[in-house]
Amino acid sequence: MRFLLGKKPANVRARVALRNPPRFASLCALTFSGDRMNGAESLVHTLLKGGVDTCFANPGTSEMHFVAALDRIPGMRCVLGLFEGVVTGAADGYARMAGKPAATLLHCGPGLANGLANLHNARRAQSQIVNIVGDQATYHRPLDAPLTADTEGWARPVSGFVRTATRADRVGADAAAAIQAARTTPGQIATLILPADTAWNEGGVIGTPLPPPPAPRVDQGIVAAVARTLRSPEPAILVLAGAALTAEGLALAHRIRAATGARLIAQMSNARIAHGAGRVPIDRVPYPVDRALAVLDGLKHIVLVGAVKPVAFFAYPGKPGYLFPPDAQLHVLARADQDLQEALARLAEELGAPEVPLPESPPRPAPAQGAPTPEAVAQSLSALLPDQAVVVDESVSFGRTIFSDAAAAAPHDWLQIVGGAIGDGLPLATGAAVGAPGRRVIGLQADGSAMYTVQALWTQARERLDVTTILLSNRKYAILLHELANVGANPGRTALDMLDLSNPDLDWPRIAGGLGVEGARAETMEKFADLFSYSISRPGPFLIELVV
Amino acid sequence: MRFLLGKKPANVRARVALRNPPRFASLCALTFSGDRMNGAESLVHTLLKGGVDTCFANPGTSEMHFVAALDRIPGMRCVLGLFEGVVTGAADGYARMAGKPAATLLHCGPGLANGLANLHNARRAQSQIVNIVGDQATYHRPLDAPLTADTEGWARPVSGFVRTATRADRVGADAAAAIQAARTTPGQIATLILPADTAWNEGGVIGTPLPPPPAPRVDQGIVAAVARTLRSPEPAILVLAGAALTAEGLALAHRIRAATGARLIAQMSNARIAHGAGRVPIDRVPYPVDRALAVLDGLKHIVLVGAVKPVAFFAYPGKPGYLFPPDAQLHVLARADQDLQEALARLAEELGAPEVPLPESPPRPAPAQGAPTPEAVAQSLSALLPDQAVVVDESVSFGRTIFSDAAAAAPHDWLQIVGGAIGDGLPLATGAAVGAPGRRVIGLQADGSAMYTVQALWTQARERLDVTTILLSNRKYAILLHELANVGANPGRTALDMLDLSNPDLDWPRIAGGLGVEGARAETMEKFADLFSYSISRPGPFLIELVV
Repeated sequence: MRFLLGKKPANVRARVALRNPPRFASLCALTFSGDRMNGAESLVHTLLKGGVDTCFANPGTSEMHFVAALDRIPGMRCVLGLFEGVVTGAADGYARMAGKPAATLLHCGPGLANGLANLHNARRAQSQIVNIVGDQATYHRPLDAPLTADTEGWARPVSGFVRTATRADRVGADAAAAIQAARTTPGQIATLILPADTAWNEGGVIGTPLPPPPAPRVDQGIVAAVARTLRSPEPAILVLAGAALTAEGLALAHRIRAATGARLIAQMSNARIAHGAGRVPIDRVPYPVDRALAVLDGLKHIVLVGAVKPVAFFAYPGKPGYLFPPDAQLHVLARADQDLQEALARLAEELGAPEVPLPESPPRPAPAQGAPTPEAVAQSLSALLPDQAVVVDESVSFGRTIFSDAAAAAPHDWLQIVGGAIGDGLPLATGAAVGAPGRRVIGLQADGSAMYTVQALWTQARERLDVTTILLSNRKYAILLHELANVGANPGRTALDMLDLSNPDLDWPRIAGGLGVEGARAETMEKFADLFSYSISRPGPFLIELVV
Repeated sequence: MRFLLGKKPANVRARVALRNPPRFASLCALTFSGDRMNGAESLVHTLLKGGVDTCFANPGTSEMHFVAALDRIPGMRCVLGLFEGVVTGAADGYARMAGKPAATLLHCGPGLANGLANLHNARRAQSQIVNIVGDQATYHRPLDAPLTADTEGWARPVSGFVRTATRADRVGADAAAAIQAARTTPGQIATLILPADTAWNEGGVIGTPLPPPPAPRVDQGIVAAVARTLRSPEPAILVLAGAALTAEGLALAHRIRAATGARLIAQMSNARIAHGAGRVPIDRVPYPVDRALAVLDGLKHIVLVGAVKPVAFFAYPGKPGYLFPPDAQLHVLARADQDLQEALARLAEELGAPEVPLPESPPRPAPAQGAPTPEAVAQSLSALLPDQAVVVDESVSFGRTIFSDAAAAAPHDWLQIVGGAIGDGLPLATGAAVGAPGRRVIGLQADGSAMYTVQALWTQARERLDVTTILLSNRKYAILLHELANVGANPGRTALDMLDLSNPDLDWPRIAGGLGVEGARAETMEKFADLFSYSISRPGPFLIELVV
């Protein structure tokens, strides 16, 4: 039996209130205490109270009290992933679409390790995630049982906040601090490590939600200085990222462009771009170094709006690391942790930039016919994309031009892997579908990349998520064959053995079917259009293997 | 053009010699120098010279010069994995069977991260691995390009040796040091991080192989003290691990048991145990805490022979962490870094323990019939296991008794996941097959665990490896449902959503087929026997989904 403290009568049973968090939200604002709530239960209550109502999970033994608490306390949607990279990538996709953090649930250091690559991507995407890792009991850790590992050490490089709970009665406060950290602009990963005894011990106290700190305001002197720069005749470009790439942010940037002649570009990889008909079309800093240098050539001023300095993805012998002219001047209008839209609005105001009509969208084409090419895929997407779709782009080498070529499509959001660790596409699509119910998610998915986290398809089937995966099947690590050619080598048997994905061919409809997702193969754009239209006409996931 | 230094005529072309390392081994013993060998080439030569001739790889852009070098220089078998956990788990399995290290090839911090869980397992198995991680060029790292991560920080917890190369002309020496570290008794992970410019810059110098340091000798006073303990009437047990679990080590332990009445047991999880007919049968410290406490109850002396102190895998409320009686005395006959067989031999000698015949093996049974149970699987394996098979056991909850019950099988080696991070079985089996050609590898594989690294099946198909995977399909995380019951909870919908693998069912023959491996389903032991016999009658991989 639990009792409410405070002014409520002592015979109001806490459990009743807690079972109905939305209805009894005001009761939940009270702090519970006593000897009957364990740490895990206080964690679940604190998450729900803090607005975290979705948990992507791959639990293990040390998380069983947390699982039991989730079972007892309603309100949390739990989504199982069969591999931790699915869990963390899905939490990233969810955050990008829902605009709030999901929780993860991972098992000890090695479980966290399996999720690190997509946490790396999420960190670069500035996604908010409450990353919960169960671990050995505090007093069992020194005994170095087999699964014991350096959980904190592995978490730190991807996390803006790392805390290991040490007492059941502090878990609620620890969780509230983690949620606050995750929600701090622009968003970050907050890792909360939960030793098993802090979950099972009694004495849990629900944490009081903590507001994230306000984003530091951009100094007016900086706004004025950037305005002066843009008014000068020297060629300038605004590099946009984060909230500057929403429809509102892009419209503000468009006004600034119209008033000053400055160019606009998005950084190379972006968490989410508002795109398609009725939005301001924007190009991205290209991935190939020579293309990027050409695009940014001649500029005298680079104005960063939440963006990173344009940098080459990798170093190449004899090529520069930064992609802008060495004599260009860098300006930071706003850092990623500031309010980018507010900064753009003040810049537009400082410039006296009038409202201008949005550029007219190109006409929507007919679906493409014939052989699958990047241009054909972009054309068919422009023709067939449903309204308010979410495109998750891990198309790697094949798909680099599809984004720009799909500007005529119905309005949609375009999501990329931001950290460059391939194996994020299928999980991102999975989480985006959970975070944006009612919107069709379209995955543009390279085959080699898909294999890293192929288990995500099973979660899509289990949760009946509206995801159409366009599996771009070229049966090789095409980007690497290209890079190998750059090195000046003609690939021999040994190199092909490491870069070629045929022998055996991956049979994608069969793999998808084995994981519960219906799929089919298309070798022409006509067949592709048929399958695509079929997939979006019905709920649930579908996979199209497009042989390219 | 490259020239040999030293006494050979300057017009002998280095490249010719290097293309044929076995034939020109004496030439290779010379150190090459000059401006035409790059760091990557010096690395490949050093690896080959150090006896490392197998590389499990999942390369990326920053590794292209290494790939090109592998392509130019013959002698290295390169095995592609489509996910890094496959690569690292396979390197572990290879080392356990080949008795020497393989190299890995991983891509930057996130690629390493994907391989960490199985490196954790390999560390606990004390497997020797030369873990090569390509990374950003030294001068590009400060620019914080998207894929930049804390590669060293992530590597450290699993590695006995971590070094980041900084100059092309030192890469050979760095690699020689890494090989030496990997081979140091009992074996460890040596991580060599290779920034792209240290691979592509000229000036590479082949490293001179360094002998691993000798294992510290066990003090004779310790041998004598343990002998005195074992001669006393107080109940004692030898806990064996590592090389004490070879046929020779077990035979020595059997002599000691016969002379003293001491019991024998293997530690809970072991890299490799010589098992089956003609070997000394041995039990392992059980996983369930209560069973382990019962098995070790009443003992006064625990003698560790390369083993860790018997410790519970996880803490449970109200249960002890160590599994032996609190008043038992611990003795360390030999540490893991010492020569365990030599220590056992000296102990047998000190005791004057005579040669004794090995215990007689139980008669080989007929294959089981009817429903699949752990006992039935053990019976059929006892009947059908081919001679010198390698059993890779990731059967988790279903299979705990199969090892002991299979002592009548033809002689074989039994490999376990030692670090408890599930998702090691399929990769271990893959690497074991590469490291033990001509021997059939049998995977006892739980379904939930198999999903973490299912990509390994593709590598088995590509390399035509002789692996029979017995996929124990119970369609749940059975161990966790059991643990949840221990917590005192009846699983509700939310808990089942996190522990149940049906909805949709994983269709294993279809998944395997999609990855190029033939497979079929068995629901009876008769069908199982047919499929098993078929699978071992032909080369290449096969998967049997055994519905349990």
